[in-house]
Amino acid sequence: MIVVKVGGGAGIVYDALCADVATLVHAGQQIILVHGGSQETNALAERLGHPPRFVTSPSGYTSRYTDRATLEIFLMAVAGKVNKLIVEQLQRLKVNAAGLTGLDGRLLQAQRKAIIRIVEDGKQKVLRDDWTGVIEHVNTGLIQLLLHAGVLPVVAPIAASHDGEALNVDGDRAAAALATALGAETLLLLTNVPGLLRAFPDESTLIRHIPRADIESFLPLAQGRMKKKLLGASEALSRGVGCVILGDARRAEPISRALAGEGTMIR
Amino acid sequence: MIVVKVGGGAGIVYDALCADVATLVHAGQQIILVHGGSQETNALAERLGHPPRFVTSPSGYTSRYTDRATLEIFLMAVAGKVNKLIVEQLQRLKVNAAGLTGLDGRLLQAQRKAIIRIVEDGKQKVLRDDWTGVIEHVNTGLIQLLLHAGVLPVVAPIAASHDGEALNVDGDRAAAALATALGAETLLLLTNVPGLLRAFPDESTLIRHIPRADIESFLPLAQGRMKKKLLGASEALSRGVGCVILGDARRAEPISRALAGEGTMIR
Repeated sequence: MIVVKVGGGAGIVYDALCADVATLVHAGQQIILVHGGSQETNALAERLGHPPRFVTSPSGYTSRYTDRATLEIFLMAVAGKVNKLIVEQLQRLKVNAAGLTGLDGRLLQAQRKAIIRIVEDGKQKVLRDDWTGVIEHVNTGLIQLLLHAGVLPVVAPIAASHDGEALNVDGDRAAAALATALGAETLLLLTNVPGLLRAFPDESTLIRHIPRADIESFLPLAQGRMKKKLLGASEALSRGVGCVILGDARRAEPISRALAGEGTMIR
Repeated sequence: MIVVKVGGGAGIVYDALCADVATLVHAGQQIILVHGGSQETNALAERLGHPPRFVTSPSGYTSRYTDRATLEIFLMAVAGKVNKLIVEQLQRLKVNAAGLTGLDGRLLQAQRKAIIRIVEDGKQKVLRDDWTGVIEHVNTGLIQLLLHAGVLPVVAPIAASHDGEALNVDGDRAAAALATALGAETLLLLTNVPGLLRAFPDESTLIRHIPRADIESFLPLAQGRMKKKLLGASEALSRGVGCVILGDARRAEPISRALAGEGTMIR
């Protein structure tokens, strides 16, 4: 089983991704697809007059500040548009996909972080009314039911809080949680760069292999969202996933190429 | 089993609906919820600068003209927002709901009507690039899987074409198709009127009972969307559903009240 996460950034070629999923699934591979939707969310938020706001935590991770209005925009863009257009593409390629958020059947259960600490202009601040969370539990039963029925799950990064509220969760860490809970051999994190770069953004400085024991020492090289990918990779590897690959989703056959070694392989 | 369809019109009280679903489910009732989302779709379409267009067929039925841009707005408003906010409300009430469109797992398979005939200014016209369809098949296996797992399905009125394309389908007829395919005893169509009115919009003229054999003779009384509800009712009754109720979703306990006889009961 492979858990594939595809980011929501610029340059992602969903057609190529879906075609590759179809080829692999028709050859007998079991795949779970997790997606993002940052770019669609930003675009919709701008058009609806509620522009996105990104904040940085004291430990240096960047994330979307999700007030209730942003959560509803996120649901529309990610669960409504990105998820269903991927499912539609897969259905057109004869892959029987089903889209889910972590709210559906409580697939992903998370601890809400209603109050978050951020750093702005060098000062620590507190933000309230945040609708994000950290995943604590995966309801593998529902995913297994779908897989046994021959259905490919397409998962949007939304979780249920303990009280049943919808929460925006990080897609890479959602994919890592799913890979861990389902005992996947491989977690593939596809994005719009070729993998971890020694000198970002110079793509010729791609790091091809990282021994799992050394992942911490590579963290300082990670820029922006790549930090969360390495964090997700580290979590997944420490909990039994055999291999994490950071691959490029801007080209044909992105999954097959990543599996063949074009990307950063961590194991 | 009861299939409950709740319309997407003005005045619908989703809180009351979800609270009633929770009470009934916790008392052992099996429910499948189907929803609309016309009002959310109209509002989003206006805000995105692609206002809705409604057309009337030669036989007098009104429907949304769904070009590709409208389809994507429909996915955002209906599959993204309405569906997930209902699922969230149910999860908060300890009902393990899961939202689905008919595209997911090919739950609802439809024949696309890419070209539709309409009547405008008294003349027949042809419209192309329409992304609507008529449901032909329900994949009951997927719904049964969810029900057996204790999950309440919340279904958005979107179907898969034979080619796997996403299609906007009529919610009342989707509910009727689900009730028929699943052998439900009761199909409940909740809307923002008390039922079929002898003299619309005078709510004191509610028709409480319609013998199923006489449904055709009541069609001339139906205004606007009520025509499609009677059509859905007629289809469901002719295919084995025991009872169809047209009820009011603007009040507390809308399902319980409809089952208790407050509405138009057709059987």
